[in-house]
Amino acid sequence: MKNRCDLLIHNAQVITCADNGMPLGRLALGAVAVEQGRIIWVGSESNTPNFKAIESIDAHGKVLTPGLIDCHTHLVFAGSRANEFAMRLAGADYEAIARAGGGILSTVTATRLATVEQLTESTSKRLQHLKSQGVVTVEIKSGYGLDLDSELKMLKAARLAGEQTGVQVKTTLLAAHALPPEFKDDRAGYVTHICQDIIPKVSKEKLADAVDAFCEGIGFTPDETRQVFDAAARWGLPVKLHADQLSDLGGAGLVAEYGGLSADHVEYTSLNSIKKMADSDTVATLLPYAYYALQETQKPPVDAFRQYGVDMAIATDCNPGTAPTTNLLQCLHMACTQFGLTVEEAILGVTINAAKALGIDDQQGSIEPGKQPGLVLWDTDEVADLVYWQGGNQVKAVFN
Amino acid sequence: MKNRCDLLIHNAQVITCADNGMPLGRLALGAVAVEQGRIIWVGSESNTPNFKAIESIDAHGKVLTPGLIDCHTHLVFAGSRANEFAMRLAGADYEAIARAGGGILSTVTATRLATVEQLTESTSKRLQHLKSQGVVTVEIKSGYGLDLDSELKMLKAARLAGEQTGVQVKTTLLAAHALPPEFKDDRAGYVTHICQDIIPKVSKEKLADAVDAFCEGIGFTPDETRQVFDAAARWGLPVKLHADQLSDLGGAGLVAEYGGLSADHVEYTSLNSIKKMADSDTVATLLPYAYYALQETQKPPVDAFRQYGVDMAIATDCNPGTAPTTNLLQCLHMACTQFGLTVEEAILGVTINAAKALGIDDQQGSIEPGKQPGLVLWDTDEVADLVYWQGGNQVKAVFN
Ligand SMILES: [Zn+2]
Ligand SMILES: [Zn+2]
Repeated sequence: MKNRCDLLIHNAQVITCADNGMPLGRLALGAVAVEQGRIIWVGSESNTPNFKAIESIDAHGKVLTPGLIDCHTHLVFAGSRANEFAMRLAGADYEAIARAGGGILSTVTATRLATVEQLTESTSKRLQHLKSQGVVTVEIKSGYGLDLDSELKMLKAARLAGEQTGVQVKTTLLAAHALPPEFKDDRAGYVTHICQDIIPKVSKEKLADAVDAFCEGIGFTPDETRQVFDAAARWGLPVKLHADQLSDLGGAGLVAEYGGLSADHVEYTSLNSIKKMADSDTVATLLPYAYYALQETQKPPVDAFRQYGVDMAIATDCNPGTAPTTNLLQCLHMACTQFGLTVEEAILGVTINAAKALGIDDQQGSIEPGKQPGLVLWDTDEVADLVYWQGGNQVKAVFN
Repeated sequence: MKNRCDLLIHNAQVITCADNGMPLGRLALGAVAVEQGRIIWVGSESNTPNFKAIESIDAHGKVLTPGLIDCHTHLVFAGSRANEFAMRLAGADYEAIARAGGGILSTVTATRLATVEQLTESTSKRLQHLKSQGVVTVEIKSGYGLDLDSELKMLKAARLAGEQTGVQVKTTLLAAHALPPEFKDDRAGYVTHICQDIIPKVSKEKLADAVDAFCEGIGFTPDETRQVFDAAARWGLPVKLHADQLSDLGGAGLVAEYGGLSADHVEYTSLNSIKKMADSDTVATLLPYAYYALQETQKPPVDAFRQYGVDMAIATDCNPGTAPTTNLLQCLHMACTQFGLTVEEAILGVTINAAKALGIDDQQGSIEPGKQPGLVLWDTDEVADLVYWQGGNQVKAVFN
């Protein structure tokens, strides 16, 4: 008797990203069967059971990967910072840009003024571009609202844009992104507002899957970050952190102490913090586009992450200030070229390790029985092509 | 009586890239009329004559630019270097890569084996992606054939791919790209072959619009370059040069002495050479993707180019070794971010200055009466967006 399935993709070079002893868990010639939205079988072509499949796809030896995951974005925002970018290149300093209405607060102002419909529409456009590159899951942060209503509005827009585009969205509350103008002389007041008003409300309305903060000299102190994380813990939300981007405040170690999902940026992360990350399985999320755009020179300690077994994810960090890009494949290339990751590390960084950074590695990130499909068939015989070649759409098909 | 025209685009923010006293020759609200494949009128909305247009387009205030020009590519090649890229990242050295069949000679071998049809097909794909970004004209070099028949085959494939995709192609003979294996102990013999066999044949068959060489320690000496240029001059072909990329051999000055169209790369170009470029109107073509991919640190002398009035163009340098990209807009961003160009300089670098680098600025590169249309309507109100935002197609329509 034949096993039945909804979809059988055979004759594929299956990049499972699972632990099977081969680099990237590669099956040189294999097949994947999907039934009722779950992968039910993965294996070599020759061992494939005789499936009775509703849809059968011959991959002609092309590369099949898990759907890609962009695990760190600020995809919801209004307004444009193109003009600010132009001014900076023309030599304008921070003051001049601020006087002309630039900087993060310009995004906050525009985002507060935008309706949830407007935010959903512009976010959907950006999600659509990510989707065209084989991205099936995207993390989206709030953080340009900086008050209760506007933060809720951003999280709602993120969820709605996911529904509209068919991209799975994981939302993160980032109320501790910057100090809002109303609290500019009352840092403690804003942190209290986050902990006592925003986090409880977001938790009750189930609008966020995690809580994040920007721990930096120009952001929030480690102490303030702890307050936010304590509140998140009280309300049952996992944490992650913008850590050690411009200096070492011990942020990566701090988030690891809370059992955090990921420490992101991590250019200045110390060995001490790395050991804590290893102990708590906190992922290091590398954001090479921001590094490039800011022309930074301090690279993340990739060798130490390898040595201590800290998993590395890669994300766009898409935001209007320091990473105006929805080009995830470009970020893979940059992680290799700038930070010295291997092609294998880059691919794992947007599949299984990105899934770990979102706490969804039981569901996504590899091609294994029991997981969601989100399979991407690429127009190439070499998985290195995904990283190596920039430009032109290499996605042949996505199977959800 | 009304003036008739085939196409009227009105209500547009016209970025003419012409000299009208405004940055980028911008008309805040203007119109462009096209008749029989020529621009016949450009001006402000309020001054527009009462045209009787066959097709009339309301641009709704969006940005309209000249068609973009990619003035330096190696778009015709066979084989993949993705695996070599992966090996290099994994720590393999030059020797190991060469043993595994990598390096430029692997591209030469694959290109020699490919048919003109195969080369045309793969080149067309790359042209198609450039076209999707608003690129209407592309320069394509030979240089992976390195013998008479194979160089001719590459030039033919370039022309055919242009016809298939509707992209205007300008071809350049780059037989002096590397020493072919047959001549590895006879440099002089290969240079003689280029000068006495390849250039005359290419000229007679009108297959190339210009002649180029790679003047570098690992390429051809200034003396050898002069021999190639002398032959080009005898056969009536203009010259350009891969100059001063890894060291200063005076290449940019040399090509300027020949009245060359452009000196390309130019990271190590000396003040002496810059003065010669200024005297001969030789364009400096910046190739920021190769700089990024090779992780170079010596930036081109942009300030000196400005000071001496040397026009700067920007191109992808698309090639399988050092610039595996067809993403021209990304190269604009890199020219700004890495080399400090302004947004205006970046836009001029792929319009009027790229046209100068190809010797076609009487026909293309700006929106002026008498020129070819190739007009691009962008989905934005701010021209800086073309450089600033990476990802997602911003082209609304191209009018040829
Ligand atoms: Zn971020
Ligand atoms: Zn080149």
